[in-house]
Amino acid sequence: MATGFMESSPSSAAPHAKPITSDGLDLETIYTKVRAYTESLCEPLATEDYVIQSMPDASPVKWHLAHTNWFFETFLLTEYLDAYLPFHPQFNFLFNSYYNAVGPRWPRTQRGLLSRPSVAEIYRYRAYVDEHVAALLRSPLARNGEDVATRVVLGLNHEQQHQELILTDLKHALAANPLHPIYREALPENGNPPPGKWLAFSERLAWIGHDGFSFAFDNESPRHRVFLNGFRLASRLVTNAEYRMFLIDGGYERPEFWLSEGWASREANGWTAPLYWEKEDGDWSVVTLAGLRPLNPAEPVCHVSYYEADAFARWAGARLPTEAEWEIAAADVPVAGHFLEGGRFQPASAPAAEDQGPPYQLYGDVWQ
Amino acid sequence: MATGFMESSPSSAAPHAKPITSDGLDLETIYTKVRAYTESLCEPLATEDYVIQSMPDASPVKWHLAHTNWFFETFLLTEYLDAYLPFHPQFNFLFNSYYNAVGPRWPRTQRGLLSRPSVAEIYRYRAYVDEHVAALLRSPLARNGEDVATRVVLGLNHEQQHQELILTDLKHALAANPLHPIYREALPENGNPPPGKWLAFSERLAWIGHDGFSFAFDNESPRHRVFLNGFRLASRLVTNAEYRMFLIDGGYERPEFWLSEGWASREANGWTAPLYWEKEDGDWSVVTLAGLRPLNPAEPVCHVSYYEADAFARWAGARLPTEAEWEIAAADVPVAGHFLEGGRFQPASAPAAEDQGPPYQLYGDVWQ
Amino acid sequence: MATGFMESSPSSAAPHAKPITSDGLDLETIYTKVRAYTESLCEPLATEDYVIQSMPDASPVKWHLAHTNWFFETFLLTEYLDAYLPFHPQFNFLFNSYYNAVGPRWPRTQRGLLSRPSVAEIYRYRAYVDEHVAALLRSPLARNGEDVATRVVLGLNHEQQHQELILTDLKHALAANPLHPIYREALPENGNPPPGKWLAFSERLAWIGHDGFSFAFDNESPRHRVFLNGFRLASRLVTNAEYRMFLIDGGYERPEFWLSEGWASREANGWTAPLYWEKEDGDWSVVTLAGLRPLNPAEPVCHVSYYEADAFARWAGARLPTEAEWEIAAADVPVAGHFLEGGRFQPASAPAAEDQGPPYQLYGDVWQ
Amino acid sequence: MATGFMESSPSSAAPHAKPITSDGLDLETIYTKVRAYTESLCEPLATEDYVIQSMPDASPVKWHLAHTNWFFETFLLTEYLDAYLPFHPQFNFLFNSYYNAVGPRWPRTQRGLLSRPSVAEIYRYRAYVDEHVAALLRSPLARNGEDVATRVVLGLNHEQQHQELILTDLKHALAANPLHPIYREALPENGNPPPGKWLAFSERLAWIGHDGFSFAFDNESPRHRVFLNGFRLASRLVTNAEYRMFLIDGGYERPEFWLSEGWASREANGWTAPLYWEKEDGDWSVVTLAGLRPLNPAEPVCHVSYYEADAFARWAGARLPTEAEWEIAAADVPVAGHFLEGGRFQPASAPAAEDQGPPYQLYGDVWQ
Repeated sequence: MATGFMESSPSSAAPHAKPITSDGLDLETIYTKVRAYTESLCEPLATEDYVIQSMPDASPVKWHLAHTNWFFETFLLTEYLDAYLPFHPQFNFLFNSYYNAVGPRWPRTQRGLLSRPSVAEIYRYRAYVDEHVAALLRSPLARNGEDVATRVVLGLNHEQQHQELILTDLKHALAANPLHPIYREALPENGNPPPGKWLAFSERLAWIGHDGFSFAFDNESPRHRVFLNGFRLASRLVTNAEYRMFLIDGGYERPEFWLSEGWASREANGWTAPLYWEKEDGDWSVVTLAGLRPLNPAEPVCHVSYYEADAFARWAGARLPTEAEWEIAAADVPVAGHFLEGGRFQPASAPAAEDQGPPYQLYGDVWQ
Repeated sequence: MATGFMESSPSSAAPHAKPITSDGLDLETIYTKVRAYTESLCEPLATEDYVIQSMPDASPVKWHLAHTNWFFETFLLTEYLDAYLPFHPQFNFLFNSYYNAVGPRWPRTQRGLLSRPSVAEIYRYRAYVDEHVAALLRSPLARNGEDVATRVVLGLNHEQQHQELILTDLKHALAANPLHPIYREALPENGNPPPGKWLAFSERLAWIGHDGFSFAFDNESPRHRVFLNGFRLASRLVTNAEYRMFLIDGGYERPEFWLSEGWASREANGWTAPLYWEKEDGDWSVVTLAGLRPLNPAEPVCHVSYYEADAFARWAGARLPTEAEWEIAAADVPVAGHFLEGGRFQPASAPAAEDQGPPYQLYGDVWQ
Repeated sequence: MATGFMESSPSSAAPHAKPITSDGLDLETIYTKVRAYTESLCEPLATEDYVIQSMPDASPVKWHLAHTNWFFETFLLTEYLDAYLPFHPQFNFLFNSYYNAVGPRWPRTQRGLLSRPSVAEIYRYRAYVDEHVAALLRSPLARNGEDVATRVVLGLNHEQQHQELILTDLKHALAANPLHPIYREALPENGNPPPGKWLAFSERLAWIGHDGFSFAFDNESPRHRVFLNGFRLASRLVTNAEYRMFLIDGGYERPEFWLSEGWASREANGWTAPLYWEKEDGDWSVVTLAGLRPLNPAEPVCHVSYYEADAFARWAGARLPTEAEWEIAAADVPVAGHFLEGGRFQPASAPAAEDQGPPYQLYGDVWQ
Repeated sequence: MATGFMESSPSSAAPHAKPITSDGLDLETIYTKVRAYTESLCEPLATEDYVIQSMPDASPVKWHLAHTNWFFETFLLTEYLDAYLPFHPQFNFLFNSYYNAVGPRWPRTQRGLLSRPSVAEIYRYRAYVDEHVAALLRSPLARNGEDVATRVVLGLNHEQQHQELILTDLKHALAANPLHPIYREALPENGNPPPGKWLAFSERLAWIGHDGFSFAFDNESPRHRVFLNGFRLASRLVTNAEYRMFLIDGGYERPEFWLSEGWASREANGWTAPLYWEKEDGDWSVVTLAGLRPLNPAEPVCHVSYYEADAFARWAGARLPTEAEWEIAAADVPVAGHFLEGGRFQPASAPAAEDQGPPYQLYGDVWQ
C-alpha cells in the first residue's frame, strides 16, 4: 500500500480568509466587510512599508491595494455602471497585473520603482470605487442582475487572495531588513502537538473538483474522476522539530534525497534551511511578522519549497500526497482552522486534544 | 594647433552648492545653513519619494539623509565628543557607504529594500546629531581645535555632494514613473545663447591642482605641472539644438564617430539619444524635475555619457578638452553660475550679453 | 467527450534505436552492434565537429563517445571484472554526467572547453573498454551472472539514448553555423499524408506502465491504474502545413492561445516559429542534418516546445493528450516506424496508404 | 621626488615578435618568414586545440589563422590585385573582427561555436592568399607602389600581434583543462636575479611617441611633449618571490592597498592570487605552456591585472610608472629581450650579470 505524506500542499495555504459566495448574502455588507478587512491589514504599516518590492515575485503593498481596486473598476464598474469614469487614465496601465487582453501594463519587476501614486491617493482611489460599487449594487441592474453579483463575488475572492499576498510579500520585505521590524505582536503559542499517526484510505475511483453553483476558481473545476490506490496520510503537519532532524541528519547535503532539479535549485539558491530560518550561535531563530523569534519546535514547518518538502518526505521514508489524495482526505472534514480573520499570522501547532479526530491542520497552518 | 571642445566636464557638474571652507567663518552658522538646505530640498517630497532606488548606482533620498548624518556621527562626534552615544547600534552598518575601514555595510544595490528606519526616524537621527554637533562646537575642544573644524568642513562639503546626488537620484526615480511627477515648477528660461566662438590658449608649462590651505577633495591635489600644447576651447556649452543636429545626421548609427568601447556601450544600453530625451510624434521632450517638457533648443545638452560627448565632438570636427585644458581656461574666471542655492534645477542657456567675456557656463549648467 | 491531440509527445522522440533487451540474445553480438553503430554515426564528422558545445544543454560529440564508455567502465567493468584498471585516472571526473554518488564531475556547461583528450584518444578509450567487456562476457562470471547481463543491457540502452543525443546536439551545433554544413544527404521524401481523422477511445480504468521482465527505464514503472475519460486522438501527426496555418493566423502574437508561462517563455526566448525554421523573402526554410532545405509541408512539425504545442492545440480547438492517453492509444499498435537504424534522420510524412490502420506515426517521426 | 615602479606595463607585453618595418627589406622574404612563423606556432597542436574558445575575450586558434589571412585578403588583395576573387563568399562575415566599416560580422563571443571551416580548409585559405600576395608583390604595381608595401607591413605587424594572441589564448584554453596539456617543453630557467635598485630620472620636458617613417601602430603617435617630474624606476621586474610576500602579508584581504574599483573587481572575480597560480598543500604551482610547474621565485610575476599590480605597488610603498615614464626610461636601451622568435614562451628572470647596465627586462619578460 502506498503511503502519503502531507506537507506544504498548495491547497492548504494560510492564512487565507474564508471563501466568499453569493448564496443568500447581502452583497453590499459582505463587500464592505472584505474591503475594510484589506485596509485593516495595513493599519500597522508606516507609509514607507507600502512602497518596497523585495523581490521580482513580490509586489508593494500599495500595488496590491490599487490592483484589487482596479479589478473592480475594470471588470465590474466599467462594464456594468453606466457612464462610469475611471479614476485616473493611467491606472489601467499601472495596475493591470497579467491580463493580456486588457492592454499593456507596467512591468511586474518594476512595481517598486513607483513612489506615485502616493498611498493617500490610492486610498482615495479605493474610496471612489467603493462609492460607485455601492451605487451599482443599489441600482435596479444589480438587484436583478446575476452577472453583477457574480463579478462582485469574483472580485472579493480575488481581493482575499491579495490579502494573503499582502502578508506574504510584507513578510518577505520586512525579513530583508536587518532591523527586523515587527508588524504585529505574536499571539500565544499552542503546546506540543499529538504524535503523528498514519490515516489509511482505501483504493477507490473518486470524484474530485468543485461541485455545485457556489464560487470556485477556474482551476478547481471541472469535477472529474480519478483512480486512487490505497494510501496513508499523516494525521497532522510536519513540525519544526521533525524538520530540524532532517537538517541534523545532513538532509541538505545528501543528494540521494533530492530530485535532480531540486538538488540543482538547492545549489543555485544556496538553500541550507527553510526560508526565514537563521542560525546564530548554534540555535535557530525564525523571522516572523512578530519579528525575529526562537524556533518553536511544535509549530508546523513552513516556507519550504516543493523540492525541500519532497526531499524531507523521501528522507522520512514517505512521499508527498497528490492533490487528489489530499482532496479526498479533506472531503469530509469541516472547513475550520486558522483563517485570516483569526488574526494569527503565524502557524499554530496541532492541538493535543480536539473535538474531532484527525486529520488535523488541513486549513490555515501552512505558509508557503 | 589642436582644438579643444568643452562638454560635460566632470569639473562642471551642476547644481553643486558653492564649496565650503573654514577660513574665518562661523562654523556653527554655516553648519546650520548647509544642513537646513539639505532638508529644504526634501520639502516637495511625499514620504514615498524618499524610499525608492531606481537603479543600483542611485540611492533613496532617505539613505542620503541618513548617510550624511552618519558621516558626522562617525568621523566627528564619535572621535571628538566625549561619551558620545551613537543614535542606533545598527546605523553604522546601514549607512556606511564604502568606507571599508569602518566595518561591513549593507549592500549598495539593496538600499531600496529598507522601509525602516522611517523618514521620521531619520529626521530624528539628524536632529540628534545636530544637537551634539552644536554642543561640540561650543565646547573648548572645538574652539581651539583645528581638527574639529577640518572635520566639520569636510562633512559639510560631503553633505553638499549628497545634496547634488539627492537631486540627480530623485530625477532618475521620478523619470522612471510614467506619471511624470513634478518635483518643482520650472523657472523662466533664458533666450537664445550667443553664437559659439573658439577661444585660443597658447602652449605652456602650467601648474594645475589645488593650491593653498582652503578645503579641497583629495583628487584635486597635489598641485603639479603639465605641459599643454596650444588649444582652442569653445566659448560656451553645446546646445540641445546643436546636439540634435548630430542625431539628425545619424550620429547614433554611425560607428565612425565612436570609440570602440563607446559603440559597444551604445549597443549594450540601447542609446538612441541623451538620457531623459523622449520622442513622440517626431518631437523631442525631456524629463526634468519640473516634469515632461518640450526640448528647449537653447539649453546646453545634458545627461550624455563620456562616449556620447566624445562621439559628438568627433562628428563636430573637434575633441573633448582634457582636465588640464579646462582648468587652465577656468583659472581666471570668477566662480559664478547656477549653483544649487539659486534653485534653478535645470541648465540655463548662456546669456546673449554678459558683464564679462567668455568662456561662459563654466559652472552650474551641466548635469551629468 | 474530451478530445485529445497528439503532438511532440516525449514518448515518441525520434530517431531512437529499437530498445535492447537481454531476452535470449547473444549479448556480445548485440553489444558489438550497438557500439559500432554509435561510431558509425560519427563517420561523416570532421575532427572539429566532435569538439563544440553549442549551448549549455548540449554536449560535444566526443563527450558522448567518452561518457557512454565511462558508463560501462564504471558500472560494469569496475564492479564485475577482477583487477580492472581504469583507462585514465581523471576520466571519471571528466565523463561522469550527473551521478552524484560517483563523485565530483566537470561542469556540464564547460564540456566544450576541453580540447583534450583528443578524439583519437577517446576512440582508444572505447577500444580498451570494448576489449575488456568482451573478456568479461566470455568469463564464467558473465555466463552465469544475471547481474552482468542486466548491466550490459542497461549500458546499451543508455548508449542508444546518447546516439539520439549525438544527432540532436550535432544538429544544434551545425545549425548555429552560417555555412550550414551538411551531415548527411537527405533520403527521398514521402508524398502527402492522408487527411487527419479523430480516433475515439472510450472511458476506462486502465493499466499503464512497463509490464514484464524485459528492460525498461525506471520512469516507465511501476505499472499502475489510471482512470481515463473518453477521448479522441488525431490519427496522425500535425504537419508543417497545418502548423504554418497557426503562424499565418498570428498564433505567436495572440496570448489567448498560450499558457501564461508559455507566453513569458515566448517573450524571453523571442520565439516566432519552431526552432530551425528560417524565413527568407517570405518563404520558410528549415535547417536539417542535410543542410538548409525548403520547408516540406507534408512532414510533421518538429522542434516545438511544450508551450508551442499547447498553444497550437488550443488554437486548433483541441488539447495535447496526456501520457496515459497516448500509452493507451499506442498499446496495441506494433512498434514500427523510422527508428535510427533506418538512417532517416528527418521526420517523414505519414504514408497515404498503410498496411494497417491509424494511429500512424507513433514512433520515430518527431524530433524534439 | 616621486618614485616609479615598473610592473606589467602594456608596452612590455611578451612574447611579441620584433616589429616589422619596410625600410630596405625584401618584402616577399619577410612576408614568407612571418607567415610561416605563425603556422609553426601551431605545430604542437592537435586539431581539437584549434577549435575551442575558453572565454569571450579569447578566440580559437583557427579563428586567428583565418582572421590574419582575411586581413590581407580584405585590405591588400581586394584593393590592389586586379580581379582578385575572395576564397569564400562568407569568410568576410566570419573573420572580420571589429572593423565596423567592412560590414556585419559573426559575434565575437560565438567564435568557438564554429566547427567549420575546418582547420584544413583554413590552411588552404592561407595558401590561396599567400599565392596571390606573392603574385601581387611581383607585379609592377607592387614594385613601384608604396601603398602596397605599407599595407603588407601593416598586415605583418597585425599578424605578429595575433601570434602573441594565439599563445595567450591557447594558454588560457589549455589552463582550463584539468589534464594540464603541455604545449611545448620548457627551456632551462635562469638563476636568481640581481637585487633590485632604484634608477633615478630627473625632471624634464620630454618628447614621447613614435618618430620617423618606420611602422608604428596609430596609438603610438603623434610625437608630443610631456612634462615629467623627477622619478625613480626599479632596475628590474618584480619577481614571483616578491609578489608572494604581498600575498603572505594579506595583500588580497586588505582593502587599504586597493583602488575602490580594484577591490570591487577582486570581489566580483574572486581573485586570491595571480591568474594561473594554483595552491596545493600549501605550495604554489603555476600553469604554463609547459604544463603545471612549481612556482619559480626568480621569474617576474605575470598575469596580474592593473588593479593587482597597483595594489602591490602601494603595498611596496611605490606606484606604477606612467607610460611616459616608462618610455623615457626605455628610450636609450637597445631593443633586446625574450621575443617570440627565441621560443621562450615563459618569462625569464633578470640575469645576475649583463653586458650592459639596468634597466633590465624592458622587453619580453612579462605576459599579461
